[in-house]
Amino acid sequence: MPGAGADTTGVEESIALLSSFMSNDSTTEIERHLRALVAAGAAGDRLPSTRALVSQFAVSPLTVQNAMQRLAAAGLIETRPGTGTFVSARPTITRSDFSWQTTALGSMRTGHSVVGTAMSLDSTVPIAMHSAYPSEGLLPQRLIRQALGRAARRSPDIDRPLLGGMPELRAYFANEIDANTAARASGISSDDTIVVPGSQSALISVFRALAQPGDAIVMESPTYWGAIAAARQAGLVIVPIARGSQAPRAAELDEALETSGARLFYAQPHFANPTGALWTAAEAASLLDVIRARKAFLIEDDWAHDFGIDAQVRPLIWHDTDGHVVYLRSLSKSVSPSLRVGAVIARGPALARIQVDRTVTDLYVSGSLQAAALDVVTDPGWRSHLVRLRESLRVRRDTLAGYVVEHLGAETLTHLPKGGLNLWLRFDDGVDVARLVAECLSKGVSMAPGAEWYPAEPPGSFVRLNFSGPHPERFGEGVEVIAAALASRRALDGRKGTP
Amino acid sequence: MPGAGADTTGVEESIALLSSFMSNDSTTEIERHLRALVAAGAAGDRLPSTRALVSQFAVSPLTVQNAMQRLAAAGLIETRPGTGTFVSARPTITRSDFSWQTTALGSMRTGHSVVGTAMSLDSTVPIAMHSAYPSEGLLPQRLIRQALGRAARRSPDIDRPLLGGMPELRAYFANEIDANTAARASGISSDDTIVVPGSQSALISVFRALAQPGDAIVMESPTYWGAIAAARQAGLVIVPIARGSQAPRAAELDEALETSGARLFYAQPHFANPTGALWTAAEAASLLDVIRARKAFLIEDDWAHDFGIDAQVRPLIWHDTDGHVVYLRSLSKSVSPSLRVGAVIARGPALARIQVDRTVTDLYVSGSLQAAALDVVTDPGWRSHLVRLRESLRVRRDTLAGYVVEHLGAETLTHLPKGGLNLWLRFDDGVDVARLVAECLSKGVSMAPGAEWYPAEPPGSFVRLNFSGPHPERFGEGVEVIAAALASRRALDGRKGTP
Repeated sequence: MPGAGADTTGVEESIALLSSFMSNDSTTEIERHLRALVAAGAAGDRLPSTRALVSQFAVSPLTVQNAMQRLAAAGLIETRPGTGTFVSARPTITRSDFSWQTTALGSMRTGHSVVGTAMSLDSTVPIAMHSAYPSEGLLPQRLIRQALGRAARRSPDIDRPLLGGMPELRAYFANEIDANTAARASGISSDDTIVVPGSQSALISVFRALAQPGDAIVMESPTYWGAIAAARQAGLVIVPIARGSQAPRAAELDEALETSGARLFYAQPHFANPTGALWTAAEAASLLDVIRARKAFLIEDDWAHDFGIDAQVRPLIWHDTDGHVVYLRSLSKSVSPSLRVGAVIARGPALARIQVDRTVTDLYVSGSLQAAALDVVTDPGWRSHLVRLRESLRVRRDTLAGYVVEHLGAETLTHLPKGGLNLWLRFDDGVDVARLVAECLSKGVSMAPGAEWYPAEPPGSFVRLNFSGPHPERFGEGVEVIAAALASRRALDGRKGTP
Repeated sequence: MPGAGADTTGVEESIALLSSFMSNDSTTEIERHLRALVAAGAAGDRLPSTRALVSQFAVSPLTVQNAMQRLAAAGLIETRPGTGTFVSARPTITRSDFSWQTTALGSMRTGHSVVGTAMSLDSTVPIAMHSAYPSEGLLPQRLIRQALGRAARRSPDIDRPLLGGMPELRAYFANEIDANTAARASGISSDDTIVVPGSQSALISVFRALAQPGDAIVMESPTYWGAIAAARQAGLVIVPIARGSQAPRAAELDEALETSGARLFYAQPHFANPTGALWTAAEAASLLDVIRARKAFLIEDDWAHDFGIDAQVRPLIWHDTDGHVVYLRSLSKSVSPSLRVGAVIARGPALARIQVDRTVTDLYVSGSLQAAALDVVTDPGWRSHLVRLRESLRVRRDTLAGYVVEHLGAETLTHLPKGGLNLWLRFDDGVDVARLVAECLSKGVSMAPGAEWYPAEPPGSFVRLNFSGPHPERFGEGVEVIAAALASRRALDGRKGTP
């Protein structure tokens, strides 16, 4: 019965031939004979009996049985006791059919590519300036190793930690609000603090806990792509208000809250991602006044708390007495992505809602990670690490900014950020950023296209350059590649214009 | 100026008096004098000059300054250079006003107490039988410590791991589907597997990715409280179908899917939480037939994969070729709550949707935790640990079941589960479980009230007893406390009945 099984037969014959070369004994000879019968037969065909094979090949019954066992092990034959031995049904290789899922799942609520370049591209690019994370050399590696090692030896951390987090770690995050400030205390305590596995998951919980699907949320534009994706996942409608290198205007926030009915305003007041912009104290005060007057929440994402260069961060929640500010902070970037630990601070009923959402979402954060994170940030070495880090970031920022001004022109650098990890560049409006980014990537230089940080269409041609990547010594080279790509594109456009 | 500050003054006077007993020197004498002036004065009042005090107390200027410094440090006075020393403004203790949040937040979508007793009660109860987690003694502690220690020394784990998880850990979870099975492979690979920080967060992502708010989801009743809470958080409407100690009936699933239009069926086919029930192969096959015919998804929560006692788990996804089964597994219970790592396995477009939701929700799982988890489950000691664990669970289950039958009656034990961590008890319908649980807790015995596992009203009086807690030697004592509480309640009801 050739046809369906023809290919298989060929393979099996080759294997049988190969094994006959390798051990040309009588077991193999019988095996080869049986394989030929199987290949030629159909499922359910009866094979010769052991007795018949013993007499045909003049061997012992044991030899025949050994050969039979080899074929049985390969799934080619099966023995039904008292009846005989038969050719097995061929395993049919079926392709899976997932097409039913198309109807079952329906169309998507959000678009496809909600994951930013910063996360989706890996870090093996030769000159990587797309990442959102400082390179390993900027992390307190000795402290991390030491802390993880200690956590491994301690017993209580292995047990399930308390909901809300380790009390000492909660106290650390609460006390940080009052650090570097005058005598007046914010009154924020560990009771107001929930430990979270990174601020992204906290963002989602805060959005979900404080708003209903269909509600509006006001956001700066541009702003962190993860916040845009989180708001969409929570079913919220994003109301963007423009910001450049300054804070958004209070009047504009007021109007956005009024017309949309939004109760939430998500913002990064300090060294915002991607622009690096910093609210002044006066801007912060007038925006907070609007928030209070409109009975709204400011969700303060203090992502760059540890990345001040020319300015230090005083969280806005420090000024808040009545629970208008919900504060997010993470150690994933400044301590280590492996110590995926952060905190959310809130007060009043909002705190209770967020806590319930956190529990339902994650139950709790690994006790070992919490213990290790606490160990790092309470080590005396942490403070000195932060001082060194700030100096490294300053040198890196100034170096990269220098190359940008030299090769791309001073007008390209929107401003020199006082902290954070990124420069925000603006090209001529005609520049096709997607093509430019792809062209540079093909030459080994990665950067993040600006459009990803806009809830709607970007009002210009922007890219974000990270200056905390692994190869600061190649910044000049990287910027030259960008400049060359821009120039060749201009030349091309020029040729098109003059036929 | 007495009145407002009267209380404070009293306290300060006492402190001053106390310190004067402890060191009755002239600095303290001046300090006491100044404190009295501050207490009697108002904010902004000028205090006597240093010169005046020097002459009044016949001491050196240094002594006066020391006393002044103590009051300044306490925030009671302030010196304006060239002008003098003044009473500070009293710190006004203002109560925060969070009442505006009531309007801003609106009413709750879900009820208040969505967090089960199993999570919200801590483990310091003398005889704790409420928990959802095995006690420390049942965990592979040496392996965990060793693995965390190794992870601390390895460098690449500190860096941000790949989205979706470490390839080796994904391969481990995929291969586990084919473990202990015949030659036929499920075809599931690491590409179908996403590493998650515990199965609770995976649950939420799966519900959110595969259904829209307002859609129906079919669930066994009773079922895991965390799944009920997660479905509500995703805005889904739960359609419960009854299960006792067996699987739900296929006809009932079919009807529920048809009438509700649900595309999702969430279930725990193996040693379900809380009942410990196990689907037979025949039941599983007919339920899967319904799922396929209705073009629906089975969300298989394999929470007790490592807790088989009389039976081993073969995941239902093993039988699935066309992506109808979405599989969840976690190591948080069997390895350690500190290694908060699990996996979700899915195929087709469903996998892509879940991956996007995971990324937006959490970005990634700590590389150190992933490395440590992989280290534990690939250590030769892990297999032998599982063998010992199974024997421990068998002894604990049989011991606790024996006491239940002896003191509470055989009819109370719904059935002897073939795996898992819990016994599921049913009392006479008249028993008020909430009162019984509270009464036992007051005597140091904790258990989880059955109502928490029902999406609607429970059809009887149930409790869940965990047999993997820290004090198996006190099982008898614990059950006796329950029996006594039941008896005293019956006696009370009897007295009420015969006036």
